[in-house]
Amino acid sequence: MPKPSEFRAIEWTDAGLRLLDQRLLPTREEYLLLTGAPAAAQAISDLVVRGAPAIGITAAYAVVLSAQQHLRDAPGAWRAAVDRDIRTLAVARPTAVNLAWALARMQAVLETAGEQPVPALLAAARAIHDADIAANRRMGDAGAALIERGDSVLTYCNTGTLATGGYGTALGVVRSAWAAGTLTAVYAGETRPWLQGARLTAWELVRDGIPVTLITDNAAAFLMQRGKVQWVITGADRVAANGDVINKIGTYQLAVACRYHGVKMMVAAPLSTLDMAMPDGRQVVIEERPAGEILTLAGQPVAAGGAAAWNPVFDVTPAALVDYLVTEAGVIDSPDREKLRDFAAVHFAA
Amino acid sequence: MPKPSEFRAIEWTDAGLRLLDQRLLPTREEYLLLTGAPAAAQAISDLVVRGAPAIGITAAYAVVLSAQQHLRDAPGAWRAAVDRDIRTLAVARPTAVNLAWALARMQAVLETAGEQPVPALLAAARAIHDADIAANRRMGDAGAALIERGDSVLTYCNTGTLATGGYGTALGVVRSAWAAGTLTAVYAGETRPWLQGARLTAWELVRDGIPVTLITDNAAAFLMQRGKVQWVITGADRVAANGDVINKIGTYQLAVACRYHGVKMMVAAPLSTLDMAMPDGRQVVIEERPAGEILTLAGQPVAAGGAAAWNPVFDVTPAALVDYLVTEAGVIDSPDREKLRDFAAVHFAA
Repeated sequence: MPKPSEFRAIEWTDAGLRLLDQRLLPTREEYLLLTGAPAAAQAISDLVVRGAPAIGITAAYAVVLSAQQHLRDAPGAWRAAVDRDIRTLAVARPTAVNLAWALARMQAVLETAGEQPVPALLAAARAIHDADIAANRRMGDAGAALIERGDSVLTYCNTGTLATGGYGTALGVVRSAWAAGTLTAVYAGETRPWLQGARLTAWELVRDGIPVTLITDNAAAFLMQRGKVQWVITGADRVAANGDVINKIGTYQLAVACRYHGVKMMVAAPLSTLDMAMPDGRQVVIEERPAGEILTLAGQPVAAGGAAAWNPVFDVTPAALVDYLVTEAGVIDSPDREKLRDFAAVHFAA
Repeated sequence: MPKPSEFRAIEWTDAGLRLLDQRLLPTREEYLLLTGAPAAAQAISDLVVRGAPAIGITAAYAVVLSAQQHLRDAPGAWRAAVDRDIRTLAVARPTAVNLAWALARMQAVLETAGEQPVPALLAAARAIHDADIAANRRMGDAGAALIERGDSVLTYCNTGTLATGGYGTALGVVRSAWAAGTLTAVYAGETRPWLQGARLTAWELVRDGIPVTLITDNAAAFLMQRGKVQWVITGADRVAANGDVINKIGTYQLAVACRYHGVKMMVAAPLSTLDMAMPDGRQVVIEERPAGEILTLAGQPVAAGGAAAWNPVFDVTPAALVDYLVTEAGVIDSPDREKLRDFAAVHFAA
């Protein structure tokens, strides 16, 4: 078994919820101790914690904090106060489906938990957290089993312990494959404009003692042309019913380059990202963020005043470019609408 | 006729060679005055000036500086000193063929120029400079003639006035097409790690009043998928005898994405970049620069200590991915070894 990452990005303690402040990485490793839900909502908004699974887990623990605080401060009116906190948490980040899902689960516990709900709430939050780590480990093992001895991989963005309850999705596959001794080299794409690959993924891998080589995003095809990688492994923000993958901007370009070079494209996506209600990726509205994220760097302008920028955050990779979709419930090779329908019929049974 | 760019990146003056310090753009517009060849070699190494044609022109003027200086300081031994300077200049940057080509031309002048070589050397350097500008304008018109009204283009790196004697190669095509009124939109790839697209190309286009929209390098395929561009237009550092294009890292990835989407790939390459002595692109040694250029940003670490980086500066685009090779002597569509041999037989006649 691979050893667990030494750090915990999200940790419940007797004193409160401890979050690694990801904004400061890799320069500083500092932790925030949160004792109330508004502070947790702020931490989510401010990107102290990011990654859809990690956001959901943080919100679940925040409901525990909320109940603790209001039972102490307003014993007669705690339910209304916790409801207010849940509404605040729900709007801390747009489009994060895990956030709404985790809060709905906590709300359900709250409704049946009576007047001393903290133990049940904490158990529910821990269960969400533990289930995420367990799912990641299953995905890691399933993905790693596809990799042949001597292969090298390119991963993208950050899909590791920092983005999940722990271990990671695509980075979980890298961890499992490294632990199995099959991998020759791990490359990480820096992932402009936020540089999650450079700032977060490289930091995680260095901490785990896994050698990592960073590349600029424009060097990926040349890396493939030179035969340096046999796999690209990414996560997914959402997978449509036909297998189209919505993920960090740049994923699609990697998939196109993979197909041209015969490099295999693996997408590690927990069941929670499968959206069977979305027929295909064309339906998704791609979030576009401010031009300033491209036009400035570290607070300094990098482009002349007067230049515009196009800054889509995600892109859509057609299912036809995906070789393997890896979930905690199994692997789908060459995913398409039929295979996903059959898979969902088994794993999403009511 | 499009108006010339208002600024001059390389200018010969009575006091010496005046270079715009491109490292400081777009924040500051400052000029260095060089009076000797070692300083010019340093300026080339340090990327004060970059772009294959601009490097060649700078080196040509540097030979004039060298002769001026050594005739003054060591009248009896000036030839040996100039030869030393030429050798220093020759290794200031690898990969660019124009540097060796310009130095060879200056060397030839030197050998026939007698004991007062400065006027002949200066005339030769000016001729190289003027010929480059004239060639760019012819390339600009030839490339622009291929573009249909309403098309939009993505350009890459910096191939404009800053990279050449003036006007530009790929950016010259963009300038000519914009002046002809055919272009709907101009996108520029930011071009990691040096961000020449953001820092230099956007600055040039804004100065010329041409609207420009910057994208991160990882967004190019998504831009094509959304139908926003019909052309990618790049320059070339070197073109092999079979039409393979050696150019800025990321060019190859754009060419792969172009082919996948049916977007046309135009390479604007002056005759000076055609290297008929190199059978194909596999022969070229790709310069790799320090990992620190990727691992740090604006002097701050962006990746954890212990992470490595792979930082190739150029890549190789197979001729089969190039739709049009545009030179000052004409356009070669779908370039291959036969077409280039015939073309060279006409234009490189001894």
